[in-house]
Amino acid sequence: MKIQSTLLGLMLSAAVSLNAQTDNGIMSLKEFAYPAKRQTLNIPDVNGFKVLKCDFHMHTVFTDGHVWPNVRIQEAWREGLDAISYTEHMEYNPHSADVKVDHNRSHDLAIELAKENNILLVKGTEVTRQTPPGHFNALFIQDANTLVSDNDSKLDQEAIDKAYAQKAFIFWNHPGWKATQVPGSYEWIDFVEKMYNEKKLHGIEVVNGLGFHKKALDWALDRNLTIIGNTDIHNLIAHDYNIGAPGVHRTMTLVMAKDRSAAAIREALDAGRTVVWSSDYLFGKEEHVRNLVNASISVSPAYHEKTNAKTNVTTKYYEIKNNSDLSFELELKSGNATKRIVLYPESSQVLTADAGQSSLSYEIVSTFIRSDKHLDFKINLK
Amino acid sequence: MKIQSTLLGLMLSAAVSLNAQTDNGIMSLKEFAYPAKRQTLNIPDVNGFKVLKCDFHMHTVFTDGHVWPNVRIQEAWREGLDAISYTEHMEYNPHSADVKVDHNRSHDLAIELAKENNILLVKGTEVTRQTPPGHFNALFIQDANTLVSDNDSKLDQEAIDKAYAQKAFIFWNHPGWKATQVPGSYEWIDFVEKMYNEKKLHGIEVVNGLGFHKKALDWALDRNLTIIGNTDIHNLIAHDYNIGAPGVHRTMTLVMAKDRSAAAIREALDAGRTVVWSSDYLFGKEEHVRNLVNASISVSPAYHEKTNAKTNVTTKYYEIKNNSDLSFELELKSGNATKRIVLYPESSQVLTADAGQSSLSYEIVSTFIRSDKHLDFKINLK
Amino acid sequence: MKIQSTLLGLMLSAAVSLNAQTDNGIMSLKEFAYPAKRQTLNIPDVNGFKVLKCDFHMHTVFTDGHVWPNVRIQEAWREGLDAISYTEHMEYNPHSADVKVDHNRSHDLAIELAKENNILLVKGTEVTRQTPPGHFNALFIQDANTLVSDNDSKLDQEAIDKAYAQKAFIFWNHPGWKATQVPGSYEWIDFVEKMYNEKKLHGIEVVNGLGFHKKALDWALDRNLTIIGNTDIHNLIAHDYNIGAPGVHRTMTLVMAKDRSAAAIREALDAGRTVVWSSDYLFGKEEHVRNLVNASISVSPAYHEKTNAKTNVTTKYYEIKNNSDLSFELELKSGNATKRIVLYPESSQVLTADAGQSSLSYEIVSTFIRSDKHLDFKINLK
Amino acid sequence: MKIQSTLLGLMLSAAVSLNAQTDNGIMSLKEFAYPAKRQTLNIPDVNGFKVLKCDFHMHTVFTDGHVWPNVRIQEAWREGLDAISYTEHMEYNPHSADVKVDHNRSHDLAIELAKENNILLVKGTEVTRQTPPGHFNALFIQDANTLVSDNDSKLDQEAIDKAYAQKAFIFWNHPGWKATQVPGSYEWIDFVEKMYNEKKLHGIEVVNGLGFHKKALDWALDRNLTIIGNTDIHNLIAHDYNIGAPGVHRTMTLVMAKDRSAAAIREALDAGRTVVWSSDYLFGKEEHVRNLVNASISVSPAYHEKTNAKTNVTTKYYEIKNNSDLSFELELKSGNATKRIVLYPESSQVLTADAGQSSLSYEIVSTFIRSDKHLDFKINLK
Repeated sequence: MKIQSTLLGLMLSAAVSLNAQTDNGIMSLKEFAYPAKRQTLNIPDVNGFKVLKCDFHMHTVFTDGHVWPNVRIQEAWREGLDAISYTEHMEYNPHSADVKVDHNRSHDLAIELAKENNILLVKGTEVTRQTPPGHFNALFIQDANTLVSDNDSKLDQEAIDKAYAQKAFIFWNHPGWKATQVPGSYEWIDFVEKMYNEKKLHGIEVVNGLGFHKKALDWALDRNLTIIGNTDIHNLIAHDYNIGAPGVHRTMTLVMAKDRSAAAIREALDAGRTVVWSSDYLFGKEEHVRNLVNASISVSPAYHEKTNAKTNVTTKYYEIKNNSDLSFELELKSGNATKRIVLYPESSQVLTADAGQSSLSYEIVSTFIRSDKHLDFKINLK
Repeated sequence: MKIQSTLLGLMLSAAVSLNAQTDNGIMSLKEFAYPAKRQTLNIPDVNGFKVLKCDFHMHTVFTDGHVWPNVRIQEAWREGLDAISYTEHMEYNPHSADVKVDHNRSHDLAIELAKENNILLVKGTEVTRQTPPGHFNALFIQDANTLVSDNDSKLDQEAIDKAYAQKAFIFWNHPGWKATQVPGSYEWIDFVEKMYNEKKLHGIEVVNGLGFHKKALDWALDRNLTIIGNTDIHNLIAHDYNIGAPGVHRTMTLVMAKDRSAAAIREALDAGRTVVWSSDYLFGKEEHVRNLVNASISVSPAYHEKTNAKTNVTTKYYEIKNNSDLSFELELKSGNATKRIVLYPESSQVLTADAGQSSLSYEIVSTFIRSDKHLDFKINLK
Repeated sequence: MKIQSTLLGLMLSAAVSLNAQTDNGIMSLKEFAYPAKRQTLNIPDVNGFKVLKCDFHMHTVFTDGHVWPNVRIQEAWREGLDAISYTEHMEYNPHSADVKVDHNRSHDLAIELAKENNILLVKGTEVTRQTPPGHFNALFIQDANTLVSDNDSKLDQEAIDKAYAQKAFIFWNHPGWKATQVPGSYEWIDFVEKMYNEKKLHGIEVVNGLGFHKKALDWALDRNLTIIGNTDIHNLIAHDYNIGAPGVHRTMTLVMAKDRSAAAIREALDAGRTVVWSSDYLFGKEEHVRNLVNASISVSPAYHEKTNAKTNVTTKYYEIKNNSDLSFELELKSGNATKRIVLYPESSQVLTADAGQSSLSYEIVSTFIRSDKHLDFKINLK
Repeated sequence: MKIQSTLLGLMLSAAVSLNAQTDNGIMSLKEFAYPAKRQTLNIPDVNGFKVLKCDFHMHTVFTDGHVWPNVRIQEAWREGLDAISYTEHMEYNPHSADVKVDHNRSHDLAIELAKENNILLVKGTEVTRQTPPGHFNALFIQDANTLVSDNDSKLDQEAIDKAYAQKAFIFWNHPGWKATQVPGSYEWIDFVEKMYNEKKLHGIEVVNGLGFHKKALDWALDRNLTIIGNTDIHNLIAHDYNIGAPGVHRTMTLVMAKDRSAAAIREALDAGRTVVWSSDYLFGKEEHVRNLVNASISVSPAYHEKTNAKTNVTTKYYEIKNNSDLSFELELKSGNATKRIVLYPESSQVLTADAGQSSLSYEIVSTFIRSDKHLDFKINLK
């Protein structure tokens, strides 16, 4: 009977039981192997909705990305994502001398691997137009190849119309890209206004990679467009993000969906139930950010109190806890209490407040509910 | 209005916004500061019981430890422990030339800090006898100083009796300590048998620091004594454990308690509802280890299946998920399925099994329900 | 004048000065970005030779790898490698439906990027034969396309002869691969014996990925073939190795070369001046392993001594230091001194020895100078 | 013969060979143990001087610190420091109800352990005066107990004079401490001026913990006082600094000394050959910061060049390398070249520059050679 466990050391330098020598004369040196696992990203349900972690913008060698499609599934699996979408450029194919152009190919090559790993794969493409207006992603399409125009990238309208005809969910990517090179490219131009009026524009990419496009957030809020954030990854996630370091995650769209399915993602995108998570920040409509915060942060009843003999002031002690892998930074706005609270993922802090207060008012400065506005957060004390 | 968040980078090299210069000409260089937080140790409730993380054996400068009592509270708070106990030696006071001997002092000095940080402090002491029989911890005592005998360490009986009179919970520490130096010291001797018969022995420390005392586990199982594991820390936790590295934790007793209180801990200890967690391993009575495993591991319904065209064998895909910060290593015992599964904390793996099976049988080789026996774990497939 | 530094937090969660807002309305969220740098792998010169870090076996999308060729340069640069070689399969092209077959293409696409990043690119290929004999790598070739036979993989001889005619350095890859499936495939067969006799076999891959091929080491030693270790990476390095964790590195061949150039690498390979470094282990000819150890480990003169009043034994204190990023584990063979010493990268340990000894004898159990033999290491005490 | 190495996994979750079971029935669970080692802090010699890593300000339980003296030696050994000094408060003894007051005791208790671990122990004390002027450290004293005045903390002069009589090296600690509470306490007051004129003030603590006292740097520069930086640690280093994370180190004084001895440290302090290293920053006199930078950073000759066909501009490629564990951030001041370079510890970057330039001018924004001035750094191109 085997009575000695060989569970490898956790996480980093996974340990090896060196007697794990096979009978064919090859000894395994596993200490340095990556510990294969799908890391859970813990975010509690929000008002009965699952919070799905989604990245709707990425590339592979089939356009200008650096990896075969299977790598995107590996990355998503390791990082705990629920859904991704290959969004190859329609009009930009720099590898065409080596790689046969087929706009559906990355999706088709990866679909079986995605299913085996329980990753939801949303069929998408990137309509790569002149800037301005720039680029648009179309998700939930049927066939990317039929969207291609005659490769004259000025014929913007045609590809958008075709995607719309395929009932795509269409969002404007990284508005302001090339803003410094192309004057006027960070504006809400007529082309976009027309799309918007014709209901062909459904969302805006407010965070692209590690760039927060401030005007884009306000545009989305003012026009009730869905707020999206993606990596737009071309390289390895591990070479652009410090993935593997504690708490580090890629930029993603948190989709509050009725269940874990592609259909539920579509319904949630249409309904605008999203929050963008990038670095330590959250971006979204006040309602959704607030719901996410309320699901994540809890404050205990007072567990202790102490009266200062000199001042006669009684201090009460509370535990404020972050039940998610998100992070929050709070600054006190009114009340006599702890002035600044950093809630790291899955951790808590001691919150002290003078007795006699029924509530405190904080601002969560790591949220953006407008380009110049953080979420207010009221704590009711018990 | 402040519109730029200054949430510090998470976890490791916490970032600083260098413009955070105070008006008194002192600039803060916070990048390298430890990010103060109480890390949550996630373990789901087990059959309605809270799983409290407890360490019932430690020392400070008041006997032969290296830290002031407050440090033990800091450590416990950072690591997410619920309860600790100072168990200073009764008869061994190597610092007495410098530090006044008072067996209650470490507890008394720390009690207010413990309360402020929501750490449950259980009053205890270590009766430090000759080996054999060795040392015993007494928890939930009233006054350690009254337990001291005339310092003749052979008068074992008296201190035990006094502790018993104080209604202490008494357990035998690290049986086998000095086993190589003192022949016969790793035996169930008459002194212990007498204690046991008089109901003055309630538990056994099966893991002390990073040593698993194998005989001790079997003794506890055979006599229905409570299974305990502690650090017996003298040094800093951070110098003995690689604390801070992902997944690393101190040795502790997981107590399945009715609520988060000292009284509930006492009830659970008396009832024997404990599992020891040390390194990647769990040690305990089969029933409790099984309950803890069942609360931690979940298996999804099949989310995909695939039939091999050549062999006509259909493979089904399941997600096996660890919902806790514990870790598990499974080895297949019967069925055609994934042979070895390592469940790192808060992560999942893909489990594949041939279609047509209603269950699988695994052994969890990272558990010990006896010194030579791991837990069997049956997975029902849906 | 700018008077506040904005040096990003080191290493992991690189910090951001959030006021680094550009004037085009896009705010940078850099905390989670990978800190781009070429990590130095410190290994001191060995007897005047530079120790070059080389990986001579890898794949890209041009055969069955998962990345575009540029990724291999990025990886090598980040990890501090000096030289790599693309060794695409000659006869195995599973991506040919999508990627045009050209056996020189990965090299040609990457050569300029390699030069810009100061990575030495050695032109190579993998002759992918039936097993047995299995696969052979040919380095320093002129043109991989001309080596292709009529794709009948049994015509082993022809490709080898053509590579030899191009003055290639040829080594046998991972002997024993498929040993469990193909009986006799882990033997020194006639085909190999003939190559060896005709001087067409110059080295053996003793470590492939994280597998140490024990027979291969002994074959190389007995026939004076050059000892090689490579990743044979198909996936991302970061997905197969726990790269980024402290001390973790890919498997590589350490080449003791006259200078940092491709020509010097060739000269050193021909002369057999190599040691393989994989996980915490070194593999090689005794002479080279010893030289590398001597260059890496130093022992100080005694800096302290203490006499035990009871035993009258005097203990001397020395510092034993590892000046490299390698690691070593030593076990005492003779003498009265510290029994076991682990020398982590760039660190030291206290070595204590009874006075009156002029030397100590250790075995470095993390080295293999034969499949069943570690290096002896004598320490002269001062 | 033992043919399988058991070198533990490096660094973090040190691995265990679980068959390492001792014969006394106690199984070792070492995966989570701290890997005991003295980490080398690599800083090259500067103009023939050794760069010693020193922390001259710390406390233990013998005044208001939280650890027994031996912990400070452990910490220093682990972190690769060369010298430390216990500087217990003369007039502040909050533990006196429990710990016997003896101002030499922490030094005396630790001296043998320091010797065994090759840590240089400099005898010191902290003269804890009213603020202003605040506190002063006296190093290289003979006997701390004789320095105590009648505990009237206003008798500042007497303790200083006694320390001076013991030939102490005296520096002003954290000027500006309590600046917000005590108006005028961040000024160069008469008391200090008198000390300075009488040659009784030899240095100033410019960085205390993670606070950079900007005025203090300028005072030191203007009066040619030695620039000092210390932790002033009371708690565990591991609880105040994120020690263990890559690149993280405590605040320290880098002393450029003729050899590694206490006498050489004294000579260097008297000569003012110091640079303070805190977080990612260096603070010191221009000459010493420049010498340290020159010893640490090297730039290779151009290894590649490329001409842009359109612009006809030729770009040359250089490797800029940081040979130390320090870190540097450079910003281009003149020339056409890479604008911003971050040199992480022991790593390099690619530096590109237009051809035809003989030198480049950078500012090292992570250095302070005055409170408002960074070091200029000229790179000569080859």
